[in-house]
Amino acid sequence: MRIALDCMGGDRGPEDLVAGAVQAVSEADLDVILFGDEKKLTASLKGHAGARDAGRIEIVPTTEVVGMDESPIEAIRRKRDSSIVVAFERFKSGEVDAVVSAGNSGATMAAAVRSLGRLKKIARPGIASIFPTLKKPVVMMDVGANVDCRPTHLFQFGLMAAAFSEGIIGNDRPRVGVLSIGEEQGKGNTLVRKTDQLFRDSSLNYVGNIEASSTFKGDVDVIVCDGFVGNVSLKISEGLAEAMTIMLRDEINNSLLAKLGYLLSRGAFARFKKRIDYAEYGGAPLLGLKGTGIVCHGRSSAVAIKNAIFVAAETVHNRVNDRIMELVAESGDAGNNDSSDDDHFETGAP
Amino acid sequence: MRIALDCMGGDRGPEDLVAGAVQAVSEADLDVILFGDEKKLTASLKGHAGARDAGRIEIVPTTEVVGMDESPIEAIRRKRDSSIVVAFERFKSGEVDAVVSAGNSGATMAAAVRSLGRLKKIARPGIASIFPTLKKPVVMMDVGANVDCRPTHLFQFGLMAAAFSEGIIGNDRPRVGVLSIGEEQGKGNTLVRKTDQLFRDSSLNYVGNIEASSTFKGDVDVIVCDGFVGNVSLKISEGLAEAMTIMLRDEINNSLLAKLGYLLSRGAFARFKKRIDYAEYGGAPLLGLKGTGIVCHGRSSAVAIKNAIFVAAETVHNRVNDRIMELVAESGDAGNNDSSDDDHFETGAP
Repeated sequence: MRIALDCMGGDRGPEDLVAGAVQAVSEADLDVILFGDEKKLTASLKGHAGARDAGRIEIVPTTEVVGMDESPIEAIRRKRDSSIVVAFERFKSGEVDAVVSAGNSGATMAAAVRSLGRLKKIARPGIASIFPTLKKPVVMMDVGANVDCRPTHLFQFGLMAAAFSEGIIGNDRPRVGVLSIGEEQGKGNTLVRKTDQLFRDSSLNYVGNIEASSTFKGDVDVIVCDGFVGNVSLKISEGLAEAMTIMLRDEINNSLLAKLGYLLSRGAFARFKKRIDYAEYGGAPLLGLKGTGIVCHGRSSAVAIKNAIFVAAETVHNRVNDRIMELVAESGDAGNNDSSDDDHFETGAP
Repeated sequence: MRIALDCMGGDRGPEDLVAGAVQAVSEADLDVILFGDEKKLTASLKGHAGARDAGRIEIVPTTEVVGMDESPIEAIRRKRDSSIVVAFERFKSGEVDAVVSAGNSGATMAAAVRSLGRLKKIARPGIASIFPTLKKPVVMMDVGANVDCRPTHLFQFGLMAAAFSEGIIGNDRPRVGVLSIGEEQGKGNTLVRKTDQLFRDSSLNYVGNIEASSTFKGDVDVIVCDGFVGNVSLKISEGLAEAMTIMLRDEINNSLLAKLGYLLSRGAFARFKKRIDYAEYGGAPLLGLKGTGIVCHGRSSAVAIKNAIFVAAETVHNRVNDRIMELVAESGDAGNNDSSDDDHFETGAP
């Protein structure tokens, strides 16, 4: 198994990415190919003796970088020697099995669509995200690639996320819910109400609408929504977790007794932080492509990168794409009666 | 000032509602009229000597109750002697100045629209919500009344929420942002991108798109979105705050040292809880109506009810509706070129 790691882009430079790659090859039987500035990557690798010598880590030098704020489609057209474009081209030529990037997620998606192409009958590839819950993690899709959707798109997000939930979370018949503003059938906007029947007619383990307040309870395995709602849900959760952490820290710092108490509770706080840390869950898979790509947060830690590399490897090993194709075939025509429609793809996406 | 309080519906019976009313009349110069089952309300009032004798609290007996899960429009048509319907009728006849309810929010909105009617040139009344942030509270609108919106609807939500932010939060020129998936102009779905120009052409203090991750930073005063996205944002935030509290409690309970630490930090935790508690902010105002209504969470505490009563009184006293009409007049035709369109109103809303 050979995983490509785009080491440019991202918010923190290549050190954490390289450290994540080194951890990955030391813990699992796989190779990692680093794409990026040769000088910087060689320097970063110096601190990690052995990994390169053992032949588990290689560098593919690239000269261009797609910035976090660049327009995705324009950037990947113009920067042919950028780390992300070259990484996906190496996938196309069969040299790597999957691509992981912590760079511009729109550019990663655009490069993936151009190099890999869509799976047959999939109208819109999308980005899934793995949320921590009180029970098992839940997969939400789409979280940003498709901001204006039709019912068939949402239905296919459900199929793809269910295949991923089976292969990666290990759920046998993942429970699939559509994100809405009330659990009763008929609650929701026009898109949600029209999507409902497609799921009811399918072979999926469909549980109906689920309310956003239940997202973190872990009572469903897959949450389906359009990319605008999904992106807002993901970002507002990140923002609230951060704000709550700051507020709690402020209150603790306001009192000497509370500070002492915090020192005693430190271990519990560390475990708590780990439970709510999205990084722990190894990035967001791009689903619906003829290949495997994972996008990570721009501020990913080494552990997050390592986990993303493992998720990429498992996605390949457990044949998630084959399972998506099976579910599409089972669903007959429900999922593909507008498969030629991709004109809105990526419009305005993040 | 006379505030009507719908004491039926809700999730916890009338005790907390009555206690909130008693607190309100003891702290401010206003009267509260309780609507609901006479026997139950009289019994609840017994524990609070004085308030009724002083003439600050009255009971208007009603015989019917709209349940939390009933279909709003059907329920208010059928249950003419329900507490919520009668409360708004007493507003219409001039006996009360505002209505507060912790019952079925859809039914409250439907009763309000039927009894009060829409403000002139307002296409869609909506529900605003007050979010805590690291700085001042922010007003988000719509959070559930209008699930399928046009750009003019979003524009008017911005006008109405800005008027509310001026009158209740005390912001001079509230900063208004549109909730989107990136801050740059052009990021977002079709609805958001079409709404942008309406705000740019207006006299409002418009700051452009804001990302969901910034919601709790307090860098804007008003966040505009459609009712589906707003309801999901509100509910996912409630769900996450609850899940984080449970996870932290679990981790603390897992260790004796952490438990001891928690005991020392208790005060800090209590202040933290108060800061993130939506209840503290006094419910969600219905805006765009010829009158004033506030809906509270079904599980509202007495303090939350008291605060909602105060917000209702201030909304009337500070003439928020007059200010909405001024802002509508200033905006010329931008906000009302489809004011006759209310056929989708309340369809599928929670």
